Amino acid sequence: MSNLDVCRFGILTASDRAAEGIYEDKSGPEIENFLKEVLTSPWKIYRLLTADNKEDIENGIIELIDKEMCNVVITTGGTGPAVRDVTPEATESVCERMLPGFGEEMRRISLEYVPTAVLSRQTAGIRGECLVINLPGSPRSIREILDRIFASIPYCVDLIGGPYIDTNPELIESFRPRNKKE
Amino acid sequence: MSNLDVCRFGILTASDRAAEGIYEDKSGPEIENFLKEVLTSPWKIYRLLTADNKEDIENGIIELIDKEMCNVVITTGGTGPAVRDVTPEATESVCERMLPGFGEEMRRISLEYVPTAVLSRQTAGIRGECLVINLPGSPRSIREILDRIFASIPYCVDLIGGPYIDTNPELIESFRPRNKKE
Amino acid sequence: MSNLDVCRFGILTASDRAAEGIYEDKSGPEIENFLKEVLTSPWKIYRLLTADNKEDIENGIIELIDKEMCNVVITTGGTGPAVRDVTPEATESVCERMLPGFGEEMRRISLEYVPTAVLSRQTAGIRGECLVINLPGSPRSIREILDRIFASIPYCVDLIGGPYIDTNPELIESFRPRNKKE
Repeated sequence: MSNLDVCRFGILTASDRAAEGIYEDKSGPEIENFLKEVLTSPWKIYRLLTADNKEDIENGIIELIDKEMCNVVITTGGTGPAVRDVTPEATESVCERMLPGFGEEMRRISLEYVPTAVLSRQTAGIRGECLVINLPGSPRSIREILDRIFASIPYCVDLIGGPYIDTNPELIESFRPRNKKE
Repeated sequence: MSNLDVCRFGILTASDRAAEGIYEDKSGPEIENFLKEVLTSPWKIYRLLTADNKEDIENGIIELIDKEMCNVVITTGGTGPAVRDVTPEATESVCERMLPGFGEEMRRISLEYVPTAVLSRQTAGIRGECLVINLPGSPRSIREILDRIFASIPYCVDLIGGPYIDTNPELIESFRPRNKKE
Repeated sequence: MSNLDVCRFGILTASDRAAEGIYEDKSGPEIENFLKEVLTSPWKIYRLLTADNKEDIENGIIELIDKEMCNVVITTGGTGPAVRDVTPEATESVCERMLPGFGEEMRRISLEYVPTAVLSRQTAGIRGECLVINLPGSPRSIREILDRIFASIPYCVDLIGGPYIDTNPELIESFRPRNKKE
């Protein structure tokens, strides 16, 4: 792909209550606002809202990747230990390979704020040429995590065959090792 | 369940030598002492001792949950790399979902004391409405870990449908996020 | 085994470009140099070079363990998120049990140097009486990691039935808990 290609971001909010209209989805917009602030290369956003249902989340991720051709899918919600929290299972079932480092690092970041971050089951993986990452449901936690992990996403997208992503270095310093055989 | 419900803790010691009576089980009592010290809400303890045998450990965990109706099962022993260390496998095989954050955090805590903590394969998961956590076999390590991770257990038990657990805040400050959609 | 037994180390470099002769394998020699510097007990090294191909890597690890009787196999390369990075999958498929602590700790170490370490999928496991560990492909990262994790390898080899490994304490302080029931 050329450097001028648009990077397609999919955002999937998994929330029974938001899907039923009981309350407003604030997590999806928080992720969208983050991307608007930090991205300086061309991008496009696709948003989906589903119930906390494994099949719905799987179908949502698949639609964002296989139909909308997203390069990065960020989910929010459904990562806790409760019986309706099934986003990690849905993610694992649609990905071909997992990236355990993201889950570890996101939990470690959130543990600086709340001890219950240990309960999060967030994960990340790759489907085709798309990176899928689970974020928690709380808008505050979303920002705490994205501020710290987004620096490694542009290089990941390079490695899996996606377009070149650039960020505002005053907000996020995208990191690309000089020697690609890192 | 009501807030007055008793929380049932199961403690399973996996140790060939303790099961054969070659030496005394000190790990189970260490966990029991910890619970006695920190819990201020009603609780009850069930103890089991098994050999380092996968089927025995599985049956033990199942008995504590399905028969004794435990809300939290804490195992000790059998988490190392040796061929008789099979507690993590037994745990994974009886749980419906895993909580990788506990294993990561428990290893990180123990790494502050001994570099060989990297060898531990401790994990945690959920079976029905019960949290299962593996602790190492050494009484000293048990205390180092429980002192730091117990704060997130009461909220986890809330989320999976168990009774309200309260702790002595001078020893363990139980943490519950205000907004449950964390 | 007696303390005088030789410890057999297998080093497997997974790299399409090194296997095709496009460039020289610098990672395998870096690991070999590290071992030469730190080991003070008897040792022997077996080296293999394969393409980034799952079956080749699996066969290589199996050859080092089942034929060459290695006690420790260290791989380098193929741990990233790209489609040709398959060393962790190959490792998992030939090991009987996994040691998640190594992957966690190696990523945490590398994260002190580069944020993209979160993308690494390095893991470790046990096949028979042999420890298998994945290192990244960059010689600099290899050294950063080995300097910090090697201290726990001699005790791991004890636990899985291998020979006694000793290291130069000025370089690597091998750690063995006094009470083996850690």
